[in-house]
Amino acid sequence: MSSIAHFAFPLRVYWEDTDAGGIVFYANYLRFMERGRTEWLRSLGIAQQALRDEIGGMFVVSDTTIKYHRSARLDDALWVTTRILDAGRASITLAQQVLLQGQAHAEVLLAEGTIRIGWVDAISLKPGRIPTAILEKLTS
Amino acid sequence: MSSIAHFAFPLRVYWEDTDAGGIVFYANYLRFMERGRTEWLRSLGIAQQALRDEIGGMFVVSDTTIKYHRSARLDDALWVTTRILDAGRASITLAQQVLLQGQAHAEVLLAEGTIRIGWVDAISLKPGRIPTAILEKLTS
Amino acid sequence: MSSIAHFAFPLRVYWEDTDAGGIVFYANYLRFMERGRTEWLRSLGIAQQALRDEIGGMFVVSDTTIKYHRSARLDDALWVTTRILDAGRASITLAQQVLLQGQAHAEVLLAEGTIRIGWVDAISLKPGRIPTAILEKLTS
Amino acid sequence: MSSIAHFAFPLRVYWEDTDAGGIVFYANYLRFMERGRTEWLRSLGIAQQALRDEIGGMFVVSDTTIKYHRSARLDDALWVTTRILDAGRASITLAQQVLLQGQAHAEVLLAEGTIRIGWVDAISLKPGRIPTAILEKLTS
Repeated sequence: MSSIAHFAFPLRVYWEDTDAGGIVFYANYLRFMERGRTEWLRSLGIAQQALRDEIGGMFVVSDTTIKYHRSARLDDALWVTTRILDAGRASITLAQQVLLQGQAHAEVLLAEGTIRIGWVDAISLKPGRIPTAILEKLTS
Repeated sequence: MSSIAHFAFPLRVYWEDTDAGGIVFYANYLRFMERGRTEWLRSLGIAQQALRDEIGGMFVVSDTTIKYHRSARLDDALWVTTRILDAGRASITLAQQVLLQGQAHAEVLLAEGTIRIGWVDAISLKPGRIPTAILEKLTS
Repeated sequence: MSSIAHFAFPLRVYWEDTDAGGIVFYANYLRFMERGRTEWLRSLGIAQQALRDEIGGMFVVSDTTIKYHRSARLDDALWVTTRILDAGRASITLAQQVLLQGQAHAEVLLAEGTIRIGWVDAISLKPGRIPTAILEKLTS
Repeated sequence: MSSIAHFAFPLRVYWEDTDAGGIVFYANYLRFMERGRTEWLRSLGIAQQALRDEIGGMFVVSDTTIKYHRSARLDDALWVTTRILDAGRASITLAQQVLLQGQAHAEVLLAEGTIRIGWVDAISLKPGRIPTAILEKLTS
């Protein structure tokens, strides 16, 4: 994949992901990107259920922009990539791509976007600052 | 529709409901039946978010059996019907159908099934008895 | 609602729409907006399954930008609004909002975004021009 | 896992799978089982998109029965198992389980069910016999 540092997570297209157009339903790329972000967080030692249980907070998505270039179909094998564009106390912006797996580094870009996530109290849903310990794990 | 007393709720098939077979993804009939049950409960004065907030409990599904007869497609207008088969303190069993809307009572049965629901504490998820006040609303 | 001409479609939040944060899963606002667009098209005499069967083409989403302001919860009643921002032969851009229904025009904005849709051949998925007859219905 | 021959496929619970009860939405176990069946078919050399493209047919689900025993939560790691209960020319019945991964073979059964699948023409959706070559792959 590209030389820019990012995290890549593989996934497969199942019936549940497709629509009557014969392709992946476009809203489901947000689900794919969510899985990619979750595994990227896990790779940095951050488990979201544990965050809620132990710290009482959770990430929430505040902005998404997605461009759709090509369509994936049933049984396609994909990559979801995640890298940080910007990280602050109030929010983090990530760049993500969904690519069709190919031979010899011949991936095809299917969709790409930016996702901004903030932090809220898990009970009150009130916005707060991202805990320093988490921010350090994300940006170190 | 049939002469047996039941609650009927209308819904429409959207892109999100279909799969690459060109028809409604079979798992989504469970979502349709859920909407039908929710509106049936609401028609009896039972709002589930309020149950959680005020009583601290919620219904959970413990068994489902579904038979699929025919397929719905994009833009189809459907009915979801709900009626009680059996009601006890520990669980309630419902019979539900999904039908294609037709002219002059010419509905076509698409899928039918039974759904058994129990009651759990919303925090601990431990099973409990269905509150008497709710059971009375359901069976009166 | 606002004085700008738009189409408003009501919907309800069900269990299927929520996530473990206790709120509507953010990707599902794209599904809500899809339903709103579909009913807006239907109100203009455009049924998408018929388009595929008769003209052999379909709309596809090429860009989405969504801002999330507040969260919807189980049982909330919502509005989805749709209006045209820009319409050309190659694509149409729509502005859509999801609002919490309120009393006395006191709706609360939950999410808003722009959705750009293009036109493709239903079999080959190759992009094409939006048929004139459809474009006229949309913009008349 | 058990000594009965079956195919086991691992998966992870993401936000998209959960509902406001804090647990996996029960309808999503059908999606998990679908993924397990798809990977079981793939392990036998059967790719469903290729079936449609080359043979013009596809599997459809005709009956499901699911019992829910315990709940999965965000971040849980699961197994989905698949084995054949019965195979004929008209339909195949599979037994499937969803288990919470545990240490030292200490899996916890979350849900189990039977899924009957038939075969239809991919265009007309008319039922037909399962092609002999496929049946042989499944039962050899």
